Amino acid sequence: MPVDDDLILDAAVDELRDYGLKRTSVDNVARRAGLSRATVYRRFESKNVLVQAALVRESARFFGEIVAAIGPLPTAEERLVEGFVVGLRKVRTDALLTRLLVSDPEELVPYLTLRGAGVIAAASEFLVSQYAEVGGTMTRDPHVLAEMLVRLAISFTLTPDGSIAVADDDAVRDFARGYLVPLMS
Amino acid sequence: MPVDDDLILDAAVDELRDYGLKRTSVDNVARRAGLSRATVYRRFESKNVLVQAALVRESARFFGEIVAAIGPLPTAEERLVEGFVVGLRKVRTDALLTRLLVSDPEELVPYLTLRGAGVIAAASEFLVSQYAEVGGTMTRDPHVLAEMLVRLAISFTLTPDGSIAVADDDAVRDFARGYLVPLMS
Repeated sequence: MPVDDDLILDAAVDELRDYGLKRTSVDNVARRAGLSRATVYRRFESKNVLVQAALVRESARFFGEIVAAIGPLPTAEERLVEGFVVGLRKVRTDALLTRLLVSDPEELVPYLTLRGAGVIAAASEFLVSQYAEVGGTMTRDPHVLAEMLVRLAISFTLTPDGSIAVADDDAVRDFARGYLVPLMS
Repeated sequence: MPVDDDLILDAAVDELRDYGLKRTSVDNVARRAGLSRATVYRRFESKNVLVQAALVRESARFFGEIVAAIGPLPTAEERLVEGFVVGLRKVRTDALLTRLLVSDPEELVPYLTLRGAGVIAAASEFLVSQYAEVGGTMTRDPHVLAEMLVRLAISFTLTPDGSIAVADDDAVRDFARGYLVPLMS
């Protein structure tokens, strides 16, 4: 029977949430998934690759939850604004992310920066697909705008202090309305 | 005679450029500046604080060079576009930054993310003061737009791979024209 990557990634996420980044190993993930070390290594060649795949999948799940939250909104503009608001709120409350930002900040950050291209691309593609679904027809490139949003969201997550009060939903909403929506044309 | 902070910060920048982040210490900076350890600690309470102050000053110098490069341009819009192009080009060629990104990436990144609020604020204030100097009159908040630019520039520096080809001046110029200039109104 072929091994399901999701089984491995579920175990990786559980290990990360319970033990943090430094103490998660391919061995422990394999044990939790009930698989041999060799089987896991065949699918994910290193801890870095495995953690990155887990974070890419978690970011897709994360965006899935945002999309569910904004589903009832009729226009692409309203969906972008509320998606940005809900997204930054979720970042502040997500169990895995807050765990890792507290326990392993200097381990987590490279996965969102130096090795962050995968997470950025996955999140951006997700936004673009959602935009296509509501029939968006902006003349700008939605991939570029989506990537801007994701890069800003990561920046606000890692460095919340600044001119925009990211812990205040109304301030985030005003920012999205004033500085992101005008680019959707 | 009061100790000049610049003397200490110059020594800190030289140490960082020559030895990288991990091997720079308050002791070595004091020795290079010809000061006692206690004198340096009186001005900068820890290595973290000293390195952060050195990076804040370097980012101000960095933006000063950009401003010199775009000085001849008449409009705020052209200055923003070329400033963004020159800025990302300088990031790729700056001796200290490229040294640290190669030798100490996982040490440098926290200074631009988790502990990045000082660098972001300094760089943003610099952009705003330059904008005020050319008599800019946008209705949006120039502090917010400046911070967006700085956050995006840091993101492109730490994660260059994506939809926008940041190593290509023309692609950066098109991005700035299409996605940043429209917010200057």
